[in-house]
Amino acid sequence: MSVEVKSFDVIFECDAHNAGGMRTDMAVRMVKPDLMEFALASDEGSFHGGGGTAPPPLTYFAAGLASCLMTQLRAFSKRLRIEVGEMKISTRCHWQGEQTGREPYVTAPVGFDLDIEIGTDAPLEEQLRLIETAKKGCFIEQTLVRENIIAHRLKVGEDWHDV
Amino acid sequence: MSVEVKSFDVIFECDAHNAGGMRTDMAVRMVKPDLMEFALASDEGSFHGGGGTAPPPLTYFAAGLASCLMTQLRAFSKRLRIEVGEMKISTRCHWQGEQTGREPYVTAPVGFDLDIEIGTDAPLEEQLRLIETAKKGCFIEQTLVRENIIAHRLKVGEDWHDV
Repeated sequence: MSVEVKSFDVIFECDAHNAGGMRTDMAVRMVKPDLMEFALASDEGSFHGGGGTAPPPLTYFAAGLASCLMTQLRAFSKRLRIEVGEMKISTRCHWQGEQTGREPYVTAPVGFDLDIEIGTDAPLEEQLRLIETAKKGCFIEQTLVRENIIAHRLKVGEDWHDV
Repeated sequence: MSVEVKSFDVIFECDAHNAGGMRTDMAVRMVKPDLMEFALASDEGSFHGGGGTAPPPLTYFAAGLASCLMTQLRAFSKRLRIEVGEMKISTRCHWQGEQTGREPYVTAPVGFDLDIEIGTDAPLEEQLRLIETAKKGCFIEQTLVRENIIAHRLKVGEDWHDV
C-alpha cells in the first residue's frame, strides 16, 4: 500500500512604498492558500533619521520568527495529541554590522536563540518530539537554514533587470 | 595609514505568549543600539482554527524583509549621494509544504522575489551600486543567505535543555 504525498503552496506578497523618508507603507497579502490583506508600516527612530511613526523593520522579523514557531507548536500539539496549555518563547535575534572607514556598513547574523516553555504534563520525550515537528513545519525556521534563495530585479524603463 | 574598522551590535528580543489558541501576543524590543518596545500579535484565520484577530506570522516576515531592504536603500542613497525620490518593492515569498500520509507536514522555501522601482535620474550603474550596497547592509537579507544559526532551548523544571 503506497502512502499518499501531498504538497501545497504558501505565498505572501508585500507591496512596499517609500515616499522619501524612512517610513515605508506596506500592503501585505496572503495569496495562497487563502486571500487576506493587512496594512503595515515601518519607520526608524529620530536618531536614525526617521519619524518614529511605526516599528523598525527588524521588529517584524523577530515577531514573525517567534509567532511562526509558536503557531506550529500549537497546531502540531493537536495533531500529535499532546495536551498543552500556555506556552512562552523568549526570542533573541542578534546581528553585527561592520563599517570600514567611511564605507557603508555590511551586516551579518550572529545568532537567533529561542527559549521555549511549554505548560504540559507530557513527558520530556513528547515535548522534544513536538518541538522537532514544529521546527520542521515552521516556514521561517526552514527558510533560515537554506542557502541563497533571494532574487532581485530593478525596473529600468519598461524592462526588469536581474540585479 | 590604516583604515579604521568599527563593529556594532543590533539586538531584538521578542517575548511571545500563547494562552491556548492560535493567537500569540508579543512584546518586541529593540535592545541595541537603542531601547524601544512594541506590542504585536499574530493569529490564524478561522479555516486554520484561529480567530482572525491579528495577521498570521508570515505577514510579519514578508513585511520585515521588504521594509528592511527599503530602509537600507533609503539610508544608503544618502550615504552614496544618489538622489532618490519614491521607491517601490513588490515582494513575493513562496514556500511549499509536503505532507506524507497523516504525518505532520514539513516545509521548505521555494523563492523570494523582490522587484524594485527607484524614482531617480541617476544612471543605471549608480542604481545597481545602491542595490548592491543595500543588500549587503540589509540584516534580513544577510540572514537568509547563511547556514543554520538558530538555537532552541526547552525549560524543564528549572533547567534549560538544548533541543
